[in-house]
Amino acid sequence: MTADALVFYSPVDDAVAWREALTAELPGIDFRVDPDVGNPDEIGYALAWMPPKGFFSRFPNLKLVTNLGAGVDALVRRDDLVPVKFSRLSDPGMVAMMTSYVVFAVTRYARDMHIFERATRRGEWEYVHPRPLSDIHVAVLGLGELGGPAARTLASMGFSVTGWSRSVKNIEGVTSVTGEDGLERVLADNEIIVSLLPLTVQSRGLLGAREFGLMPRGVKFINASRGAIVDEAAMIEALRSGHIGEATLDAFEIEPLPPDHALWSFENVLITPHMASITVPKLAARDVAESIRRVRQGLPPLHEVDPAHGY
Amino acid sequence: MTADALVFYSPVDDAVAWREALTAELPGIDFRVDPDVGNPDEIGYALAWMPPKGFFSRFPNLKLVTNLGAGVDALVRRDDLVPVKFSRLSDPGMVAMMTSYVVFAVTRYARDMHIFERATRRGEWEYVHPRPLSDIHVAVLGLGELGGPAARTLASMGFSVTGWSRSVKNIEGVTSVTGEDGLERVLADNEIIVSLLPLTVQSRGLLGAREFGLMPRGVKFINASRGAIVDEAAMIEALRSGHIGEATLDAFEIEPLPPDHALWSFENVLITPHMASITVPKLAARDVAESIRRVRQGLPPLHEVDPAHGY
Ligand SMILES: NC(=O)c1ccc[n+]([C@@H]2O[C@H](COP(=O)([O-])OP(=O)(O)OC[C@H]3O[C@@H](n4cnc5c(N)ncnc54)[C@H](OP(=O)(O)O)[C@@H]3O)[C@@H](O)[C@H]2O)c1
Ligand SMILES: NC(=O)c1ccc[n+]([C@@H]2O[C@H](COP(=O)([O-])OP(=O)(O)OC[C@H]3O[C@@H](n4cnc5c(N)ncnc54)[C@H](OP(=O)(O)O)[C@@H]3O)[C@@H](O)[C@H]2O)c1
Repeated sequence: MTADALVFYSPVDDAVAWREALTAELPGIDFRVDPDVGNPDEIGYALAWMPPKGFFSRFPNLKLVTNLGAGVDALVRRDDLVPVKFSRLSDPGMVAMMTSYVVFAVTRYARDMHIFERATRRGEWEYVHPRPLSDIHVAVLGLGELGGPAARTLASMGFSVTGWSRSVKNIEGVTSVTGEDGLERVLADNEIIVSLLPLTVQSRGLLGAREFGLMPRGVKFINASRGAIVDEAAMIEALRSGHIGEATLDAFEIEPLPPDHALWSFENVLITPHMASITVPKLAARDVAESIRRVRQGLPPLHEVDPAHGY
Repeated sequence: MTADALVFYSPVDDAVAWREALTAELPGIDFRVDPDVGNPDEIGYALAWMPPKGFFSRFPNLKLVTNLGAGVDALVRRDDLVPVKFSRLSDPGMVAMMTSYVVFAVTRYARDMHIFERATRRGEWEYVHPRPLSDIHVAVLGLGELGGPAARTLASMGFSVTGWSRSVKNIEGVTSVTGEDGLERVLADNEIIVSLLPLTVQSRGLLGAREFGLMPRGVKFINASRGAIVDEAAMIEALRSGHIGEATLDAFEIEPLPPDHALWSFENVLITPHMASITVPKLAARDVAESIRRVRQGLPPLHEVDPAHGY
């Protein structure tokens, strides 16, 4: 018997849209939505977001778990994982969306738009002479599926871009830096700093008082990754002291950000409701289907995740 | 005798920076700053911004006038032009800067950032589900030195882009449309509309009550070109009625925009102080030098302007 059915589980995603999108890419796929899974022995693939404890071990013939999102931090820290292949979503639509978020936030600061927004509200024509984009140094922390294309697009627009990652990268126009000393230099040398790191054991709380202190005074900080990468209390302190000049934040320790949270009180913080990038089933289904095909042939899936690495 | 000296005139630009930048590109250029022009017969080239009436006819051997800026509307409408070659500034730095302005303004609306800015000020987590960029239809009116690259970059980011120009264009990812009926379709079919038209006899007041009426209700309008392309009273009326949903404006009939101007009163209008793009002499000097070299050889200059066309 070949276990070739797929089980879908998500408290937030649209099962009907996913069934439709995946069937279009993989005609005949036996798409079962939990709890209607039939014979669990027939399940070979799981497409899941935050399934309950013990979910994976219900399926003895499971070969592939695809995380219904880009961020796998909630998946890899589980203590009930089974020894199968893991992958995550990634698709051109999601990549384009994240790039647009980062380009918006970086360009807003680079072009002094935050100053003009405030001047407009005051009814004042406040001229600031533009600086050439090549004079503006931008760091992207994390050069993965989302950080890599965002950094490349910023460089192609004319910004001076440095990226930080675990392994050395070769991205057109982007200076690649690695290691702890690399991070220190990146933080010190850039006036706009974007986090696109995954949340892992290593990156949890990575940006704290010491790291904000290394950044130049008045730094613009953009977090489109995960809230817990930042020590929020230290960030708030750096905002209070003026060391962080401006921030654009899409991810927080607690979401939605509670109404009485200190971050709401800063005129120089733009808060967005965790919308930097989403998955559209229609666009993401192609790679989910391709991963299933590859696993059927004994190949690794696309966008593979290594739980030991944490991303 | 060869008239091979250059006369510089500008009430706003930095003559020292221009002399330095141009000398680096064209060693030995005889760079004279008005009024210290010496023998006017020796002047072959003018690099000028809004020189006084009669300026050009002072130089009998003038061959080339280079406008110290991209917009030539103030130049071509003069009645004291002499029959020489005309060119305008354009350089990769200026192009990158304008593209960054347009990308910022378009992405701000496409990603609902104007909504999040307001929600942040109210201290509210207001979630808006993102739309794929390819579902967002953007029009760029004018596909010249600045509009063409801006449209191409928007398309490469994933937006659905249509451009309007006099002649048909072949720009990757950009649907090219021309003519009056083309304009009507472009206005009706796009939810974000960017003007990068030059100000000419044809384009003065081109966007009036009728044209705003053709745009879809709630349209986002971006003007990074010239104020007089728009009928400002009609635009204000369309903002009042809610037909224009949002606007980002960098150019106005009167600049600086007077403190009591009605445009300051709209929460949904972002006003920027004519800074979308500037010229950095260091970057722009290369093409100014090349134009002089070309004219010396009897070739047309780069970025040539046809006063009869008006741009
Ligand atoms: N806000 C939103 O709407 C939203 C949406 C989607 C995703 N996200 C978040 O965006 C972030 C980026 O996602 P992604 O898909 O681009 O991640 P990814 O593909 O896993 O890439 C991770 C990148 O970070 C680097 N990295 C990981 N650990 C590191 C360490 N300890 N030191 C240095 N570099 C390290 C990796 O280096 P190597 O390449 O050398 O391995 C890689 O370049 C994640 O936090 C994700 O949760 C947010
Ligand atoms: N706000 C700022 O900071 C700033 C800075 C620099 C420039 N600007 C302004 O930006 C605008 C664009 O500059 P540019 O250098 O890109 O201009 P350009 O190179 O002269 O290009 C003009 C474009 O508009 C098209 N066009 C002209 N008249 C037309 C008509 N009647 N119908 C349809 N299309 C028409 C042309 O079509 P063809 O290609 O077919 O001829 C061309 O594509 C100008 O208004 C300039 O003054 C503003």
